[in-house]
Amino acid sequence: MKELEERILSEGRVLPGGVLKVDGFLNHMIDTTLLHDMAVEISRLFEGCGVNKILTVEASGIALAGMAGFVMRCPMVFAKKSRTSNISADVYTARVQSFTHGNTNMLMVSKSYLSDSDKVLIIDDFLATGAALIGLRDICCQAGAEVVGAAISIEKVFQGGGDRLRSEGLRIESLARIASMTDAGLEFC
Amino acid sequence: MKELEERILSEGRVLPGGVLKVDGFLNHMIDTTLLHDMAVEISRLFEGCGVNKILTVEASGIALAGMAGFVMRCPMVFAKKSRTSNISADVYTARVQSFTHGNTNMLMVSKSYLSDSDKVLIIDDFLATGAALIGLRDICCQAGAEVVGAAISIEKVFQGGGDRLRSEGLRIESLARIASMTDAGLEFC
Repeated sequence: MKELEERILSEGRVLPGGVLKVDGFLNHMIDTTLLHDMAVEISRLFEGCGVNKILTVEASGIALAGMAGFVMRCPMVFAKKSRTSNISADVYTARVQSFTHGNTNMLMVSKSYLSDSDKVLIIDDFLATGAALIGLRDICCQAGAEVVGAAISIEKVFQGGGDRLRSEGLRIESLARIASMTDAGLEFC
Repeated sequence: MKELEERILSEGRVLPGGVLKVDGFLNHMIDTTLLHDMAVEISRLFEGCGVNKILTVEASGIALAGMAGFVMRCPMVFAKKSRTSNISADVYTARVQSFTHGNTNMLMVSKSYLSDSDKVLIIDDFLATGAALIGLRDICCQAGAEVVGAAISIEKVFQGGGDRLRSEGLRIESLARIASMTDAGLEFC
């Protein structure tokens, strides 16, 4: 998506350790017009696929998932994170390692809000190793829900998570795909 | 807002300890059509006030704030929470006690995204004691930004936070105002 790639080039910052900062328009301050344009593009990509529910994970996936749900006319569920081990029995859970934060989170979705009649589109802001996506797919699997695919704002292709999941048959559409990223610059696929 | 009140009456659940569960349409699974209707109502309430930025706090305020930002054509900033004391120097911070979770969070907003030229509308899902709202107002104050007002999904009026802040001159518009809430039922103002 040209508009997103241009914003990444003009405003993104590459930090040591392979972190791409897009705080100014995507995940601390959010350009809500860009957000809507991204949701429209996701809707276009998954048109006719019968998606009836959007699934994401707090916190930075919520804004885009909510907007996409509005554009696609379906509800949005966000997995909650918890650092406690006190998980009640009526939730689906998945343990996920965060690349950016370097910690482990337990993702939780209430069993009331995901079932075997759901056709789910997973949405997240970043795809690197694919850990969050695997966790969300696992939660859908526990619910017996069908995962139609995943829509990602920014995929770090060089980290391999996306292609690994594609090879397992998961459809992934990333709005910006970064082939390489160094202090010297950033290249899209 | 009639539509929201009706959903609270039909789907909300009052839990022990004064917690109102609206997980099915507002803060775990989100009805994105209702979300948009709420954003349009907020836009109507603050029309002509010159709002140029929306401020909320992760995670459950993000969906509504993002949608309101889109409707009102301005960017949305969400304060991040951290449990660490390792706060860098380039953020505004406020310490806030969570009523629902019973813990204390440090709210953080990068100094890059809030300044004395901003006219800010604060948005949050719940208003009870007002702690989060006070924290967000404090962050605006540190930035020299003007707080035009606050828009809240559900105010628990009986907990007094809203009226206390109104008496200090803060304009607060709550889309649903709960006068009382017991196991027997729930009444709006």
